Amino acid sequence: MLESGPVVIVTTASADKQNIMAMSWHTMLEFEPPLVGCVISDCNYSFKLLEATKECVINIPTVEIAEKVIGCGNTSGEKVNKFKKYKLTPKPASLVKAPLINECYVNLECRVVDTKMVTRYCFFILEVIKAWIDPTVKNPRTIHHLGKENFMVAGKRIKIKSKMK
Amino acid sequence: MLESGPVVIVTTASADKQNIMAMSWHTMLEFEPPLVGCVISDCNYSFKLLEATKECVINIPTVEIAEKVIGCGNTSGEKVNKFKKYKLTPKPASLVKAPLINECYVNLECRVVDTKMVTRYCFFILEVIKAWIDPTVKNPRTIHHLGKENFMVAGKRIKIKSKMK
Repeated sequence: MLESGPVVIVTTASADKQNIMAMSWHTMLEFEPPLVGCVISDCNYSFKLLEATKECVINIPTVEIAEKVIGCGNTSGEKVNKFKKYKLTPKPASLVKAPLINECYVNLECRVVDTKMVTRYCFFILEVIKAWIDPTVKNPRTIHHLGKENFMVAGKRIKIKSKMK
Repeated sequence: MLESGPVVIVTTASADKQNIMAMSWHTMLEFEPPLVGCVISDCNYSFKLLEATKECVINIPTVEIAEKVIGCGNTSGEKVNKFKKYKLTPKPASLVKAPLINECYVNLECRVVDTKMVTRYCFFILEVIKAWIDPTVKNPRTIHHLGKENFMVAGKRIKIKSKMK
């Protein structure tokens, strides 16, 4: 019922291996510095890479590549090279070893800054250290997981006077 | 850029006072038991009530009452009775003292189960102990904060085969 923010793709990399996973459970925690908290289950191969390297990229896809994104969520990077399988293009990041995904309109290079909640909740606290955005994407139709096979696509934009940041 | 899940209304209550706030920074943390993590700034009057009572209700509104919701986000409960001001109807909850909001299609009664991240991040971990849903609302048009005065309304539903819960 409490649907989440957009499904994102998290990329990680060790010296000899890059991986991709789909992830829905995340929230902003702070604006300055920009902190994001996210749940990455220890069942995921990415968990090990993130724990070891303390770096990742959060890539935000839109509905145009939804099938690829959900595909990433349905397979394990331990056995499959998901970049090849889903035709996603890795691009070098600027400050971290994990790659950006070229097909995503936003890429956030992140460093793990707090792991105190990892053992109990698999909850990593990340600082966004560099952000890339495709300025040509005006109304990104992000995809939001509603549970099981159900997703919501971001709809129309509205303006309401708000004091919030 | 990393838009959030739906704007929700959090209700809290002490013996002699009920309060309402709008909140966007939340994430699921676990299915069993259902855990939600959320940021409630210590600038908010609700922070004090939540810290003291360890109980709240997460109410999920739709775009039909967006103006009221954002209004709640723009005023402080210390000075204003927001139920009266925004014509929102409190209804007794079943397991907590904080009220349900009748105009919302989902109400989640919550208890604070972990406060270890409150001092540092104002991040409360809540367990949903009772959930109410209006079954007549089929495609709830929730509202998502994009920053400042900009909001996205939940769009169309799609199905994509997924192994995710």
